[in-house]
Amino acid sequence: MAKARVIITLKKTIMDAQGQTAENALHNLGYRGVSNLRIGKVVEMELDGAPKEQLSAQLDKMCRELLANPIIEDFQFEIED
Amino acid sequence: MAKARVIITLKKTIMDAQGQTAENALHNLGYRGVSNLRIGKVVEMELDGAPKEQLSAQLDKMCRELLANPIIEDFQFEIED
Repeated sequence: MAKARVIITLKKTIMDAQGQTAENALHNLGYRGVSNLRIGKVVEMELDGAPKEQLSAQLDKMCRELLANPIIEDFQFEIED
Repeated sequence: MAKARVIITLKKTIMDAQGQTAENALHNLGYRGVSNLRIGKVVEMELDGAPKEQLSAQLDKMCRELLANPIIEDFQFEIED
């Protein structure tokens, strides 16, 4: 049983309206030092049933097929035993 | 200028309908080995204007005040130079 964490973020060239709104709100609360705030998704899961060395390829496929939208999003993941 | 990443997830006791839906969809696509899938948010930002040693306390406050909902969500963050 391995644990995996996937981080999915909008590509840098895509405007992040949600992140911009949160950044403005933080500025209004007095946190002036915040910049380039971006909001993405994190997907945590447990993986079983495949040899460890295949999990990475499987997870990459899962991201491309369902979890992320590769047209507008980047993703990165880490797997730990 | 420091970079920070905040991971915000629903508390374990809160049902994650979005995560459950994604897990079911992955099962239907043939990824039977996936379990306990949970979906959360990741917030990435740059921080400036405070001494490095104060950034952690400031970020904790930002999470409690705006970024996370501490009643139903857990958060963790890391800061790198």
